[in-house]
Amino acid sequence: MSEIKLVPEGSVTSAIGFSAGGIYAGIKTRGAGKLDIGLIYSDRPCDTAGTFSQNSVISPSVTVTRGLVEAGRTIRGVIANSGCANCAVGEYGLKDAEEMAAIAADKLGINSDEVAVASTGVIGVELPMALIRDHVPRITLKEDGGNEFATAILTTDTHTKHIAASFRVGGSTVTIGGVSKGAGMIHPNMATMLAFITTDAEIETMFMRQTLLEVVQLTFNQIDIDGDQSTNDTVLLMANGAAGNPTISGGDEASETFREALFAVALHLAKEIARDGEGARTLIEATVEGAMSDDDARLAARSIASSLLVKTAVYGRDPNWGRILMALGKSQIKLEEPKIRVFVNDIQIVAEGKAIAYNVQSVVSALAQAEVRLRVSLDIGDGTGTAWGCDLTEEYVVFNSAYTT
Amino acid sequence: MSEIKLVPEGSVTSAIGFSAGGIYAGIKTRGAGKLDIGLIYSDRPCDTAGTFSQNSVISPSVTVTRGLVEAGRTIRGVIANSGCANCAVGEYGLKDAEEMAAIAADKLGINSDEVAVASTGVIGVELPMALIRDHVPRITLKEDGGNEFATAILTTDTHTKHIAASFRVGGSTVTIGGVSKGAGMIHPNMATMLAFITTDAEIETMFMRQTLLEVVQLTFNQIDIDGDQSTNDTVLLMANGAAGNPTISGGDEASETFREALFAVALHLAKEIARDGEGARTLIEATVEGAMSDDDARLAARSIASSLLVKTAVYGRDPNWGRILMALGKSQIKLEEPKIRVFVNDIQIVAEGKAIAYNVQSVVSALAQAEVRLRVSLDIGDGTGTAWGCDLTEEYVVFNSAYTT
Repeated sequence: MSEIKLVPEGSVTSAIGFSAGGIYAGIKTRGAGKLDIGLIYSDRPCDTAGTFSQNSVISPSVTVTRGLVEAGRTIRGVIANSGCANCAVGEYGLKDAEEMAAIAADKLGINSDEVAVASTGVIGVELPMALIRDHVPRITLKEDGGNEFATAILTTDTHTKHIAASFRVGGSTVTIGGVSKGAGMIHPNMATMLAFITTDAEIETMFMRQTLLEVVQLTFNQIDIDGDQSTNDTVLLMANGAAGNPTISGGDEASETFREALFAVALHLAKEIARDGEGARTLIEATVEGAMSDDDARLAARSIASSLLVKTAVYGRDPNWGRILMALGKSQIKLEEPKIRVFVNDIQIVAEGKAIAYNVQSVVSALAQAEVRLRVSLDIGDGTGTAWGCDLTEEYVVFNSAYTT
Repeated sequence: MSEIKLVPEGSVTSAIGFSAGGIYAGIKTRGAGKLDIGLIYSDRPCDTAGTFSQNSVISPSVTVTRGLVEAGRTIRGVIANSGCANCAVGEYGLKDAEEMAAIAADKLGINSDEVAVASTGVIGVELPMALIRDHVPRITLKEDGGNEFATAILTTDTHTKHIAASFRVGGSTVTIGGVSKGAGMIHPNMATMLAFITTDAEIETMFMRQTLLEVVQLTFNQIDIDGDQSTNDTVLLMANGAAGNPTISGGDEASETFREALFAVALHLAKEIARDGEGARTLIEATVEGAMSDDDARLAARSIASSLLVKTAVYGRDPNWGRILMALGKSQIKLEEPKIRVFVNDIQIVAEGKAIAYNVQSVVSALAQAEVRLRVSLDIGDGTGTAWGCDLTEEYVVFNSAYTT
């Protein structure tokens, strides 16, 4: 497999042919001056792959974008706004999402069915279309505008989330770049998870879609901040083929490299969301190994990373491993208690399903680090899975309860 | 259906033939003086029904009791301790649970396979058997000892939870009494849910078991404090037939009355657990009506009552109904957004799936009450379901993170 180069400062404009920009239109009423509309533009058509919220209540912005992806349309643009989820607003939601696409298409000189739409923010409030009509034409697209776009989609996030990866295929350099955003802002609401990933790879669409599904399953679908699933979650991958590489279509080394690079980008973006959870101080990485299957291991790892009692124990630097076993078992996967081992940052604290002597102060110190790794070994199979969450602090509660209409 | 009389001060000793008591043995190291072992005794054999935690990691105390219930054994006693969950302690867990039963049996003058066992408290610590051996013989059984037993099983609960109901069947008075406990204490750990219900009804065992399952599904299985499922959850129903009523066996009015009375007792005990959640100030009752099925409605109601963002919104008195729709949709049940109506304490705030004009101050006042009723009408079927939760406050976080070894 050829070497994958990670570019920490990379973004959705790292791949050839993509430009982006953002503007403050006033949709975020309590974040004056913060960008709230972003545009991505590709100078040639992109094949797409996407995954979307499974919530029964869905933003029409998601409906529009999912429709484009499912119809297999190529797209050339993305418009995304923060400050308003365009959800639960009745029949105007779909009209507004479609008009947003049309406004962006006019700006970009393309057709409106070549534009994907995304929204994040408060549910139940209509999009301020006048502001959008007025401001989108003023957005300046830049070849290094990825960070502006990354800023425009933030809500309660404390920092932008972006990365790129590149690798060589048959004499060409292929780049994959992405941005994401996590939890709430201003009108604290819910962790809409948005991620946009662009690549200049020449890639076969079905292979790309399958690969995205696999990668999302291992990354974005393994993070948790508060257990609540947004109505607007979207991961969108766009490939414009500008790299000119021999087509990547699965079954060879280049395909495996693409998958690894996409995984690296998605993993980074997903972990950054978990790390930046509302009120969070610690990234929790939970790994379950030796399970009957990878599915079992992933389910149990996510159960551990999602448990409020594990989250509060990490916050309190309390090596309360009973909570880890509770959360493991809550997943109802197969296990044999006398075989369970538990490690905190590689310090073993449980063997044969029960406590062993360990240096408590070392574990307390481990729990005080910015990243805490909880590892459970089941020793009944080869299944492995990892999930990421964050600790639960008083700030999460204050943040999500302090706003009163 | 004959009249059901509720007795708020009633308990597990309200039914004929049951006595109970408790003692402080020192298992709760940080709750000096608080009772921590409780006994229930029936002067004649009881048929039993029970439901138990579905966690893959199970306390051997649960294993012992579940074994008795599944084998269809009659029992005459219950021993329960708080302060230690007797879970994840290796091979000694089962030996200790069996010895606990034997110690109680000696005290009560019955066989050890006539004693059910329950434990609640910290996971991963062995039961202090010497304290149990020493103190159980000193417990004094009293005909009005139900409240002592209710006290002995508390952990972080702020008050005891008990009630009784009685009704007439063919010239006899049948009584059903119960106690329950909720969330943590001392070494804040997890919301072991324990409930013990006694009745003097003469009742056919299969009918009693089926009825308990149905009632638990609608009551204890519809509450949420923090989404974490204990390793020790137990609901145990014991019937000793002392009332001398014509046997209740299903299909008649007396059976329906029994079911209603059992439901009333279980509902009270379950709601008291939700109301007394760690750090909670408000009982949240979430009802979904007009769903395709009762199962859908119950699932969605529990999703609403369990959502951290709904819990924090109630705490903040924020009529943020978008979160209610998010939590509803997270359950992935079938719905039609344009038909959704939402009510807070009977004040309608959403019609046709979107906001309507309402008096915000009235809703904020409603959210400030000790009980908040959230009601969602889907208008696509006849399914109805209710769930109960509590608000999420900073105190929950402090409570579960402040203890550091």
